[in-house]
Order: sequence, then C-alpha cells, then structure tokens
Amino acid sequence: MKLLEERIQKDGEVKSEGVLKVGLFLNHQMDIELLDQMGAEWARLFAGRPITKILTIEASGIGIACMAARHFGNVPVVFAKKAKSINLTGDQYQTRVQSFTHGRIFDVIVEKRLIQPTDHVLIIDDFMAMGAAMNGLLDICQEAGCTVEGIGIAVEKGFQPGGESLRERGYRVESLAIVDAMDPQTGQITFRH
Amino acid sequence: MKLLEERIQKDGEVKSEGVLKVGLFLNHQMDIELLDQMGAEWARLFAGRPITKILTIEASGIGIACMAARHFGNVPVVFAKKAKSINLTGDQYQTRVQSFTHGRIFDVIVEKRLIQPTDHVLIIDDFMAMGAAMNGLLDICQEAGCTVEGIGIAVEKGFQPGGESLRERGYRVESLAIVDAMDPQTGQITFRH
Repeated sequence: MKLLEERIQKDGEVKSEGVLKVGLFLNHQMDIELLDQMGAEWARLFAGRPITKILTIEASGIGIACMAARHFGNVPVVFAKKAKSINLTGDQYQTRVQSFTHGRIFDVIVEKRLIQPTDHVLIIDDFMAMGAAMNGLLDICQEAGCTVEGIGIAVEKGFQPGGESLRERGYRVESLAIVDAMDPQTGQITFRH
Repeated sequence: MKLLEERIQKDGEVKSEGVLKVGLFLNHQMDIELLDQMGAEWARLFAGRPITKILTIEASGIGIACMAARHFGNVPVVFAKKAKSINLTGDQYQTRVQSFTHGRIFDVIVEKRLIQPTDHVLIIDDFMAMGAAMNGLLDICQEAGCTVEGIGIAVEKGFQPGGESLRERGYRVESLAIVDAMDPQTGQITFRH
C-alpha cells in the first residue's frame, strides 16, 4: 500500500538492523485517517470473505482493528489479552507466546464465548516479524474451531520468517507494507513489490 | 447516555460489589457501532472545544479513543504505554500509577514529542474508579504544559471517588454512564441521572 510505504519512509525510524519504529503514526501516536485507509485496503483485499469478527492482540493492534472493522460492516473486534486480570473470569483460551521485541514470555488469553466455531475471523496486527504473537492467535482460533479467513498485517518484516511461514501453511496474509531491508546508517528502507 | 446504560444493563456482569465486567461489548470484545455512537456523544458534549489530540492509555482505552477521534476531525490519538519497551526510546514523560484492578504498580510512559504545549487534549478511557490511571495521564499533561480540554469516560463508578475528585479539581469530566450501585446478588445496576 503506497500510502503506508510513503509514511514509513517519511516518519519511520530505523533504530537498528531489526528495529523499525513507527510510533509517530501507527503504534504510539495513531494517524486515524491513515488507519481508516488501511482498513479500506484490507476490505478491498478480503472482499467477498464472509468475515464475522476481527481478532487482534493488545495493545497496538486494537486501534488498527477497530478502524478496519468499520469497513467490514462494523463486525465486533476481540482483542486477546496479554496477562491475567482479575476481571477476566470464566472459560478462556490461553496460549503462551515468546515476544522477541520485549524479550519475555507472556500468556495470550481470549474468553471462549467470544469466538464461536461459526465465526469467520480476520486477524489483524500492526507488525509481523517472527510471527510469535500471530501463532498464538492462530492456536486460539484452532482451539475455538472457527474459520480463519485471513491475516492482515500493517508492517511485515520480510527479512524475518513469520509471514512466509504462515503463507506456506496456507494462510492468506495481506501485509500492507513488507520491509525487505533497513539501513540504520542511512535510514533507507527497502520495500518488497 | 441511554444506549450505553441499556447495554450495560443487558450485557454487563456484576462480579462483586466493586467489579463490573463489560467484556462483551467494551473492553475485550468491542461493539464498533456502540463505540462510534459514544464518540458522537463526546463530540456533542465537547463541541466547540479546540481539541487537537486525544490521549488514552493501553489497552482498553485505545479502541474507544480511535473511534471517538473520527468525530473530532480525525485528530491523532496517543496512547500511553504501561511498561518500558525496547522500541520506546528518546525523551519520555513517565509517571507511576497504582492499579487497584490489577493490584500492581506500573509506569505510564508517553514520548515527549507526542504532546506539545500547544496541544488541546481530550483524555478518554473506558473506566474510572479511583482515578489512578487518569491522574497519571494528567501528570503527564501537566508536565507537557498542554491544555486539558476535558475527560471522557465510558463507565464511571460513582461510588468510588475518582470522578468527583477530578471535578473538584476543575476538570470537565463527561462519563457516558455513572454507576451508583451494583448488586452482585441480583445483577441490578443503578445509574446516576
């Protein structure tokens, strides 16, 4: 998606060979107009799919998923939680995820009643690198017995294996920008086309 | 807001005298149409205020804030982060918050460049009880030197002092539903009008 690539090129910050910061517009401050257009693009890409629910994971997926939901007929958005909360009771799907960004292991939790076997789910997240969080969400979908219609990612790090691995497993992954290389010296970002 | 009160009455779950669960429509699964109408209501309540930015805190404030931003001319949304991340660098506002819900102390962090002294900020969150998280966000706004135009809360627990304390300090707090009492035996919820 040209608009997102241009924005990453303009406001993205290459902090090291592996770390791209998009906090000015995507996951600390959020450009609502951009998120809206990203939602429209996923709606175009997944047109015809009978999506009943959008699943994402806290925290930075939530805004993107909500804005996207408007383009899918205001389907409900469910966000997986990253830690136990005393407010979270009843039957839960739970899976363990290793975050490479944060260097820690956490539990991903979704209440069972929020995903039904009849649901057709679109999973949305801001970043895909190793695919660890996404694999956790897919575990939960499999346990729930729902249909995963596709995966929408804002920024995929094409030099890490998460996206390719999911495509090989047969998932339709639509990343709006795929970064193939980043140069922390020059700030140059190379996108896949 | 009648629509929200009706939804809380219908789908809210009173888990104990102090705990109201709204995960079916507000902060685990999100009803996008409801969030949209909540945003419209805050836009009506804060009409004429020159709001340039919406500030919230992860995770459950994010969806509500993004949907609301559409009704304020797509102003950017900034969400405060609850823990240090290796992606979060540079100058940050940081303040300590005690969460009563989660029974722990955490740091609230916002990058300094995201809130300017020229900003007119609307703060939005899903719940207000003791007001601990809100006080953290207000600390950050004060440090940033911005103007706080108001505070929009989805559900205020009127039997806890957070909301009143903020109003006494002169803040305009617009809670779309104020719960004055909850009965865990009957599930009865009493709203303030």
